[in-house]
Amino acid sequence: IQVNAIMPLLNDHICLQEQSRAFMRPLSTCPIFVLITQAKESKTFQAIQEERREQAERSVLISCPSKINENTFLDDLSKHGTINKHFFYNSYGAYAVVEFSSRESIASLKESTNIPAVEHEAAVPFKSRLLSLKWPGSQSSNHPMPKFKVQSPLSINEISQLLSEKDSIDEQLQCLTEALELTEENVRLRFLVCSLLQDIAGAYFPECIIRPFGSTVNSFGKLGCDVDMILDLDGIYATSQKKGSGLSLEYQVKRGASERAVTQSILSVIGKCVDQFGPGCVGVQNILQARCPLVRFAHQPSGFQCDLTANNRVAMKSSELLFLYGQLDPRVRHLVFSVRCWARAHSITSSIPGAWITNFSLTVMVVFFLQQRNPPILPTLDRLKELAGPSDKCVIEGNDCTIVSDLSKITLQQNTDTLEKLLQEFFEFYGNFPFNKTSINIRKGKEQTKPETTALYIQNPFETTLNISKNVNATQLERFVALCRESAWLLQQKEILNQCPDSPWGFAALLLPSVTSGAGVKSRRKRKLEPASSRIKNLLDSLKIKGGETVAKKGNANSSR
Amino acid sequence: IQVNAIMPLLNDHICLQEQSRAFMRPLSTCPIFVLITQAKESKTFQAIQEERREQAERSVLISCPSKINENTFLDDLSKHGTINKHFFYNSYGAYAVVEFSSRESIASLKESTNIPAVEHEAAVPFKSRLLSLKWPGSQSSNHPMPKFKVQSPLSINEISQLLSEKDSIDEQLQCLTEALELTEENVRLRFLVCSLLQDIAGAYFPECIIRPFGSTVNSFGKLGCDVDMILDLDGIYATSQKKGSGLSLEYQVKRGASERAVTQSILSVIGKCVDQFGPGCVGVQNILQARCPLVRFAHQPSGFQCDLTANNRVAMKSSELLFLYGQLDPRVRHLVFSVRCWARAHSITSSIPGAWITNFSLTVMVVFFLQQRNPPILPTLDRLKELAGPSDKCVIEGNDCTIVSDLSKITLQQNTDTLEKLLQEFFEFYGNFPFNKTSINIRKGKEQTKPETTALYIQNPFETTLNISKNVNATQLERFVALCRESAWLLQQKEILNQCPDSPWGFAALLLPSVTSGAGVKSRRKRKLEPASSRIKNLLDSLKIKGGETVAKKGNANSSR
Repeated sequence: IQVNAIMPLLNDHICLQEQSRAFMRPLSTCPIFVLITQAKESKTFQAIQEERREQAERSVLISCPSKINENTFLDDLSKHGTINKHFFYNSYGAYAVVEFSSRESIASLKESTNIPAVEHEAAVPFKSRLLSLKWPGSQSSNHPMPKFKVQSPLSINEISQLLSEKDSIDEQLQCLTEALELTEENVRLRFLVCSLLQDIAGAYFPECIIRPFGSTVNSFGKLGCDVDMILDLDGIYATSQKKGSGLSLEYQVKRGASERAVTQSILSVIGKCVDQFGPGCVGVQNILQARCPLVRFAHQPSGFQCDLTANNRVAMKSSELLFLYGQLDPRVRHLVFSVRCWARAHSITSSIPGAWITNFSLTVMVVFFLQQRNPPILPTLDRLKELAGPSDKCVIEGNDCTIVSDLSKITLQQNTDTLEKLLQEFFEFYGNFPFNKTSINIRKGKEQTKPETTALYIQNPFETTLNISKNVNATQLERFVALCRESAWLLQQKEILNQCPDSPWGFAALLLPSVTSGAGVKSRRKRKLEPASSRIKNLLDSLKIKGGETVAKKGNANSSR
Repeated sequence: IQVNAIMPLLNDHICLQEQSRAFMRPLSTCPIFVLITQAKESKTFQAIQEERREQAERSVLISCPSKINENTFLDDLSKHGTINKHFFYNSYGAYAVVEFSSRESIASLKESTNIPAVEHEAAVPFKSRLLSLKWPGSQSSNHPMPKFKVQSPLSINEISQLLSEKDSIDEQLQCLTEALELTEENVRLRFLVCSLLQDIAGAYFPECIIRPFGSTVNSFGKLGCDVDMILDLDGIYATSQKKGSGLSLEYQVKRGASERAVTQSILSVIGKCVDQFGPGCVGVQNILQARCPLVRFAHQPSGFQCDLTANNRVAMKSSELLFLYGQLDPRVRHLVFSVRCWARAHSITSSIPGAWITNFSLTVMVVFFLQQRNPPILPTLDRLKELAGPSDKCVIEGNDCTIVSDLSKITLQQNTDTLEKLLQEFFEFYGNFPFNKTSINIRKGKEQTKPETTALYIQNPFETTLNISKNVNATQLERFVALCRESAWLLQQKEILNQCPDSPWGFAALLLPSVTSGAGVKSRRKRKLEPASSRIKNLLDSLKIKGGETVAKKGNANSSR
């Protein structure tokens, strides 16, 4: 069973599996009160992050030969303490993640771990929690070998094939989410990579925390997406408290011209350390001149692309907001995953910075759409603020970012629309949206008059004077609107709903290349999905057309997450 | 009382002071057996270094206003534990070094220390043991204020004045040593600066040690000399031991092309950290392409210029060898300090790398000279190797660097020559030395046939195929020989021995500028000592003459220490 990775962690594993199954039931049979009950059981966003972080600190990442004896491996490691959980995966090589029940086990394990002996002085002897297992070659292979799972996402063709085997569009959209979403194991691996990086940064800033934000934690992350991280230094200041009277002592510290200069300085040193000392870390780039300075690197053992920023607390709050919306009703995640997949298939979004609509913008558009249902499926951001308790109060750089953390305080109105209906209405809604004069505002849950003439205006949920889709130009918006209309029209046709296991139908048919010059559904269904190389060619063609705009800083998009 | 800083540490402070006084007695009244007794009481070089290092780890460096109340200051700090020792000094500002009896006190002190509050995010919040005291301005000034000692050396004029007040050349040379040598406090400060740097390097390499070597520890260091440091990573490998059977785990580490490449990588990161995070560290230069890669920086709170190298174990052994020779007979240090002072006054040595004779070469020349006395004052290096016990065995990169560590095993022959006689003979010895065909070899204690045609050949004591004075050219050697002859001749004149408190006499007269064109002693004594600016002009003139040779890498000189 592929467990919803972002779902609140429950101590009882059986319960977790049951809930997972419940998620897979057709939504029409899943009344709202169940969701509210579920909300009551769940932990807050912060509590989940803390728990995962703490798990990661008790974990090690071990490169191992694929033919090892799993039992021997576990028995041997158990000498250092109880193993809570473990799993194997394949990335650039075979790896095991092993979580002990106590951090002391890590210390004990490290005690019995060697620096590579051959030419040891031609290696940087930095002792991290990334280890290698030397398996004696002489062992027999008549033993249970571990199952190494692949951590990469399905291809669009594989997804299309999978969807075509389903019985309804609702089932298709649920299946799509399960195929794309981060697995429990992948999320653990992401927190472990953050924790390994924290060991590097923590050398100088023992109280620092490296926290994942964005898609890793907002419940909308796809397998294979980047790991966005924040270097959180708040803990350093928190522990330094003036005590009583007596002499006042201060640390002598290096001064910077500004907070930004200090952030750049700290990130540049961490970047250098990652580059020179961090095992498995390659391709380190210091992108310090961006609006939000960052260090980018690839972590080979996990296969993750990582972006480390600092002082990005609004981004963390945005992640919490999306997480909260994602938890309130399962249809939110299904619809977001579907719309994003559809947008990616049609190159409405892109992994390259530019004038494209971002995933964050699309997600906010889905949230806004769901606020407009009758009755509404999601509450407004203002409502989430009203429900907040005193401990939820949060002001970041003058912006009130308060939202309720306790999901059980949120009551939802009964709306039993099917996913199929919601998808159809989403395309109709945005196919006819008055983008030219109206902005999207999830805080009020209402259309507003646009304060600027940019093509697409979506108010930043927390920094309310900013537009999260400022980068989008008229051409990209027009493509989005045209594709919405086409997809809405296709869903109105009976033919697309004809189940057909051998060729794309239903949602899978919507992923086929668009033919804006009026080609009928029949001809669309005849054509096979284009291979990836052809898609990339289209992308490159579109880049040529856009010219200079494609070099727009990624920072712009990042800053509004 | 200015205590001999390099002298073996004795637990009993009174004893230390008495010995210090004994050192000031004229040497002719100081029979050899006293020296042998002293040797028996002393600790090994390694034990002294360990003790100083451990003291430094229990110490903090505090910037403080000069008008503080010493009692209040100490009372307040004593809340964190017993203070073993403290002292105040002036460098770039007023500072206190405070040594607690336990490392826990440091942790407690740090607990009650704040990150500077004003614009705290424009400062790198790295918590080191370099603190600032904020003294309330309102306090009255009717209290005992601490005595802030200056850590800088006397000027040549001040030294000359001091020497002219003495009663004999022997007293002059002893006085000179006391005026120039590192003080107990200065040595403590040096070890503390190493320890502060170790906190930075230790963030990634917890078992690493930053050890001072060279003049800080070899007993010949002058106030104001650079702090040479080694990053010793051996402890990292020492603790990683294969344990029993079971699976074999290794750390994944970054590989380098060579040991040198890894050293460069590690030093470059530490250099960057020192530059960006290290409070009080300025002017950081990564000199990684030198034969012995190094990071150079100025540590402002101590006023020290620091050179950090790695993997330089032969240099550490050379320091031990000099220390050992310096301990065997007090005349060794007096003669070395005198010859070095004389050489510096005549620009035979220089703080700029080039074709000059180095202090290390001069010291080895003094050792060699003392091995040639009848009876010899110092044993040969081969003899020190013969006396070594099994635990003294030391081979570094194929070179046998074994020397005895227990000074009590060394018996010396009775030689009661006065310092005046030895100085006179030193100048005669090298004024007539057959440099053209003979090399200096302290291992055998005998002149050897030169294996190369370099102007000056002094065999490297441990890397015996190397010449530690390869950099010296014929012109510099000729100047040295000419000045030796002139000084020998001057000492033979009665006139120079006429005590005269108002103008330089005795050894002080030897520091006056040389007039090689036959000017008599009288005219020399009439001329006043040139001011420093004139000396620098001479130095610059000599630089112009030497041309390209002055850019010779400092690495050459460093490598043979």
